[in-house]
Amino acid sequence: MSLFRPEIDRLAGYMPGEQPQDTGWTKLNTNENPYPPSPRVLEAINEAARGRLNLYPDPHGTRFRKAAAEVLNVDPDWILPGNGSDEVLTILTRSFAGTSDQIAFPYPSYILYETLADLQGARHVRLPLEPDWSWNFEKVMPIVEQCKLVFIPNPNSPSGNRWTWDDLVSLTPRHGVLVLDEAYGDFADHPHRGELLNSTIGTRLVITRTFSKSYSLAGIRFGFAMAHPSIISGLRKMKDSYNCDAISLAAATAAIQDQEWMQSNVARIRTTRERLNAALASLGFHVVPSQTNFVWATHPSGEHKRLYEALKAKKILVRYMTFPDVSWANAQTLDGLRITIGTDDEIELLIRALTEIV
Amino acid sequence: MSLFRPEIDRLAGYMPGEQPQDTGWTKLNTNENPYPPSPRVLEAINEAARGRLNLYPDPHGTRFRKAAAEVLNVDPDWILPGNGSDEVLTILTRSFAGTSDQIAFPYPSYILYETLADLQGARHVRLPLEPDWSWNFEKVMPIVEQCKLVFIPNPNSPSGNRWTWDDLVSLTPRHGVLVLDEAYGDFADHPHRGELLNSTIGTRLVITRTFSKSYSLAGIRFGFAMAHPSIISGLRKMKDSYNCDAISLAAATAAIQDQEWMQSNVARIRTTRERLNAALASLGFHVVPSQTNFVWATHPSGEHKRLYEALKAKKILVRYMTFPDVSWANAQTLDGLRITIGTDDEIELLIRALTEIV
Repeated sequence: MSLFRPEIDRLAGYMPGEQPQDTGWTKLNTNENPYPPSPRVLEAINEAARGRLNLYPDPHGTRFRKAAAEVLNVDPDWILPGNGSDEVLTILTRSFAGTSDQIAFPYPSYILYETLADLQGARHVRLPLEPDWSWNFEKVMPIVEQCKLVFIPNPNSPSGNRWTWDDLVSLTPRHGVLVLDEAYGDFADHPHRGELLNSTIGTRLVITRTFSKSYSLAGIRFGFAMAHPSIISGLRKMKDSYNCDAISLAAATAAIQDQEWMQSNVARIRTTRERLNAALASLGFHVVPSQTNFVWATHPSGEHKRLYEALKAKKILVRYMTFPDVSWANAQTLDGLRITIGTDDEIELLIRALTEIV
Repeated sequence: MSLFRPEIDRLAGYMPGEQPQDTGWTKLNTNENPYPPSPRVLEAINEAARGRLNLYPDPHGTRFRKAAAEVLNVDPDWILPGNGSDEVLTILTRSFAGTSDQIAFPYPSYILYETLADLQGARHVRLPLEPDWSWNFEKVMPIVEQCKLVFIPNPNSPSGNRWTWDDLVSLTPRHGVLVLDEAYGDFADHPHRGELLNSTIGTRLVITRTFSKSYSLAGIRFGFAMAHPSIISGLRKMKDSYNCDAISLAAATAAIQDQEWMQSNVARIRTTRERLNAALASLGFHVVPSQTNFVWATHPSGEHKRLYEALKAKKILVRYMTFPDVSWANAQTLDGLRITIGTDDEIELLIRALTEIV
């Protein structure tokens, strides 16, 4: 007899992208930033490490919240720091959705939302996206209105497209919360700073951000939620008292204070993205116009798995993804390659490899 | 109308001990280690920070698990690393207890278990301890046998006493899991290495450990669970993929590899503990014989709150604790001072202050 909750036994568990621990790989599979974090981050880490690691960190992350609030033009009590935005998403799921409540998220999209709902034992349902990654509101709104919680990654993964504010306002359940997962928000051509929080849906909206992508800090696990203080104060009860450590708090504070460094890396990635788009198109790929640090590429040959494996044999990792039960896809299964924008050299290497094998 | 789950709205939230962010305090309130971590930890942090922080950490914490397994004489698949043992306790609660399941824990004890059960929406019940902090098995066993999950901190807080292996075997529910929270295990006069995992209750037992106490690393947030691989593989589904960051993994690996450093600090703390015990006794306090890095001290005057406040006015922080609904306590409420063992100088300062105000 298993000792686990039956929901847990049934689960396969979320499978993250491959993280080889040896060197020599061109890693274009998990949307990391190819550039290092701001040098100020390293200084902050060294200073924190020389500090008093024997003491607990500030449970409220006060210095970080002040720094983030300044950049985002809100008060610090609108900010909740977390151990990666993954933890923030877990806190949100547990705070709003009981076992009889319904959670929804777009599909095809980031598959973690489904895992989080399963782990919580909450009911969940997919909001099917159209072939051009847009919304059919007639189809999805009856589902949305039954929800306690809707997760929307904006821009979306794997497609990389971004939806409009009007779309997002529509997707906010009348008696529930919209979580806007902006992990990739900084890579958009015109990023925003949470202005939607001042709109009519402001008190039912949570925006999540991560330091893993634009700030080049996937290694330190840091993200945060931004929402009305009435929401943040409730979420605070759910988090572990000391969910962020002294070093990652110091690193994230330094990182968010160096906007210039982040913006200049993001600009380089946008430029490389256009180069990759053009090269993939000339190789016959269809590429969704991307507002992120990755592109979703499909090839008329449909041989995505073979391409993924041939690239892997050359020590180039991209993400081969399959999404079953997509009504508009061949054999009801969408598949394709999600390719992270690396450095120009890495992308050059990828294109040369693809040219050989496509 | 609140958007939160009703269970969350009802909760006050767990209140950790005070963590003043300014300097000048003698901090004897949250059981931190007064000595710095091993110098190898700082080297490991600096090396990790110079590494590739733009990439995700190893989701399995392989290097740490190998190092811990060697020290604890188990296989690495018996180990699950976590973002502090707080996160491990959350993972355990969520993995084993659904909303209709019952969780139990001793009382008076670490109050977090109750908060974790509330956050999960699980039923929970206290196992009342006797005035000498021992068990009345006739009273508690009928409760234990109804449980899916029993948390036992061993040594206990605030009392600092440790229970025997026979006690723990008895407290393991026949159809559930015993979690032995060994946050303070290293401070016992005769620490053990998880030998109970090889006993008859081995497949229903989880031992949790933290780096916040004996390893002087409260600032990095690192703990782990040790259990049979059938348990660990289920718990792994519940954790965030990247729950431990690259720097804390490196720090914890270096720390556990320097057993000599940890043991020598623990030995110093044991010696200071005896000194503090004697001094408190001569001031008229009753002190429970402690197997930890803190002592539970009560005074016949009953003026614990006044003493706490008078110490705080001198910038000495101890933990004033109250436990309502204790049948054998005055007015049904147990209160007292939980005092962390600091350095000899800090304890000297405390004793001098207490001598003035007691």
